[in-house]
Amino acid sequence: MVKSRAERLMDRAPDKDAIVIVNGSEPFLDSTFWYLTDQRSGVFEASFLVVRKDGSMDVIVSTLEEEAANGGLGNVKVFKSGTERDALIRESLRGCTNVGFNVSCAPYAYVEYVKKKADWITVADAGKEIAETVNVKDGKEIEATRKACAISSKVAGEIPDMLSEGATEKQVAARMDSRMRELGGERNAFDTIAAFGRYSAEPHHMPCDYALRKGDTALFDFGTKYDRYCSDMTRTVFLGRPPEILERAYEVVKEAQLAGIEEYRAGAEAKAADLAARAVIDATEFEGKFIHSFGHGIGMDVHQEIHVSPNSKGILQAGNIVSAEPGIYIPGVGGIRIEDTCLITENGCEILTSFDHSFTVV
Amino acid sequence: MVKSRAERLMDRAPDKDAIVIVNGSEPFLDSTFWYLTDQRSGVFEASFLVVRKDGSMDVIVSTLEEEAANGGLGNVKVFKSGTERDALIRESLRGCTNVGFNVSCAPYAYVEYVKKKADWITVADAGKEIAETVNVKDGKEIEATRKACAISSKVAGEIPDMLSEGATEKQVAARMDSRMRELGGERNAFDTIAAFGRYSAEPHHMPCDYALRKGDTALFDFGTKYDRYCSDMTRTVFLGRPPEILERAYEVVKEAQLAGIEEYRAGAEAKAADLAARAVIDATEFEGKFIHSFGHGIGMDVHQEIHVSPNSKGILQAGNIVSAEPGIYIPGVGGIRIEDTCLITENGCEILTSFDHSFTVV
Repeated sequence: MVKSRAERLMDRAPDKDAIVIVNGSEPFLDSTFWYLTDQRSGVFEASFLVVRKDGSMDVIVSTLEEEAANGGLGNVKVFKSGTERDALIRESLRGCTNVGFNVSCAPYAYVEYVKKKADWITVADAGKEIAETVNVKDGKEIEATRKACAISSKVAGEIPDMLSEGATEKQVAARMDSRMRELGGERNAFDTIAAFGRYSAEPHHMPCDYALRKGDTALFDFGTKYDRYCSDMTRTVFLGRPPEILERAYEVVKEAQLAGIEEYRAGAEAKAADLAARAVIDATEFEGKFIHSFGHGIGMDVHQEIHVSPNSKGILQAGNIVSAEPGIYIPGVGGIRIEDTCLITENGCEILTSFDHSFTVV
Repeated sequence: MVKSRAERLMDRAPDKDAIVIVNGSEPFLDSTFWYLTDQRSGVFEASFLVVRKDGSMDVIVSTLEEEAANGGLGNVKVFKSGTERDALIRESLRGCTNVGFNVSCAPYAYVEYVKKKADWITVADAGKEIAETVNVKDGKEIEATRKACAISSKVAGEIPDMLSEGATEKQVAARMDSRMRELGGERNAFDTIAAFGRYSAEPHHMPCDYALRKGDTALFDFGTKYDRYCSDMTRTVFLGRPPEILERAYEVVKEAQLAGIEEYRAGAEAKAADLAARAVIDATEFEGKFIHSFGHGIGMDVHQEIHVSPNSKGILQAGNIVSAEPGIYIPGVGGIRIEDTCLITENGCEILTSFDHSFTVV
């Protein structure tokens, strides 16, 4: 029988008597809560999920969230007052000593509260076990990601039609966001980056009122969510012929992405892809101009564990979903980035996003 | 001379030697960080803001955030390694004993980290002082909110044109979100609620594939962000004549909102508005059908302190921005909610959102 997500989590945490996932208030909500309960709705502010050794779960929520909670997994325990909540926390953690928490997400005050009410527990960091569990996607998760990728890929194909001289970064970003919503995306996976001309040399540029000019690079990094799962992709095109150096950079980035993706397969070291792509870039005039990592895990959060960087210690597994996003950034001139969302498989990887990767002049 | 936001914060915390605002990783980021530094850009993951008694601030960031940090207030201190970060934290908190934190937002692991590095400090809760400071908006904040409200108000006016038999909740919500982006909204203030027919009886319904039918209520709760500030409004209309009970409910909600808004002025108890609106509803056949609070604070986060509820202890001040959103919910039939974003002034309040509040049949 296939193990539940909660069982897989606890299998990875033999030293822990329980793992507690704590939510604060919006936006301090941990996607792990939805991952484990398999909820589709609800806000679950100030809610507590207690996962025990056998994978059984208590979902401790206020009356406000009762109905939503009943739509997911776990034993729903409803409190009407602070006193009732205290009692549920104590009852749920009875007999548990070493208790893992989502300490990088859970607000300090909430963990302190649990510690105070169940004063026999020791707080441990369950971040590693959570990350390792969440990183291996099941069929349902892959399907949702596939849909998110299909939506943003469609919009990637429409980018050339959205560009004309004078269009601002903000305008095009808004148009792309609108299209992703219209095509069934639930919301942005993150704020769309639209970076024109010299702004494209800044990897995390935020859209401004700069208006597109002939010869400009136009870089777009964007994604949507479907059933809570993210897509993440970057397409770089040009309005009119750019400086030749950018045309050369484009071809190098394209080659670097292929070299990295070549290393994506179950059992490979995560760093191999980064090193392969970096070697391609560093063998050219653009040495040292690839100033970030090759990739990161993607799931309900657009950035998850599995760092695909030169120092990564991770080993890729089938079911990992990771980005492949080399770039070259030339300050004052422009930048190039090409990014796809990739599913790691036993023998290689499946690229879930799709768009024309060839050098495109609009 | 006008005091800075940081000075106003520390004035409210005479017992604290410093207040630390800690950010985790996306989405565990506290808007207070942007509020105090007056930043417009940057992500500021894993960054620390130390506010000292005199209102001076250290902005402790990694090299990645250095450029963004330089665009805002405070002394930017950049670390290149964990060891350098440790040293900056220690230096910044030297001589501070009682240190307030944003404990309801800051991840547990990050506060524990600061405690360990500056092991002479005691962690206190600065939530009250932060909330009281953030709640009183200055001119710049009001201007941004005004713009966000103008954008969503325009979309509110377009709602009737978006409705037709067979349109689904998801489709109309997507259309509204697109329009808010097109009109200059940076992103949604929260996920748009579109609730048709019997679904409108659930205050927090999430848009589904239900298709609008003749006689249905169509309730929309939505808002956008401009310069980081939120708007929040709800408009309820009908596709064709609804059951008479909903027409009566509409008029009662409208009257209740006016009665509540009548109580909005500097110096008034926050609960007065809730009680006035509730009295109107409870005097009718709809007694007990107003199942949430009348209002909440609005700022960089769509829900902030100042609870306008029957038990609220707060006193309204000029510069508070609060919602006014009574509702009547009839399970199985439908719900009505009318909501505006209001600015509290010395003599009353200014309603920042605008749309046709009359009973509207499309």
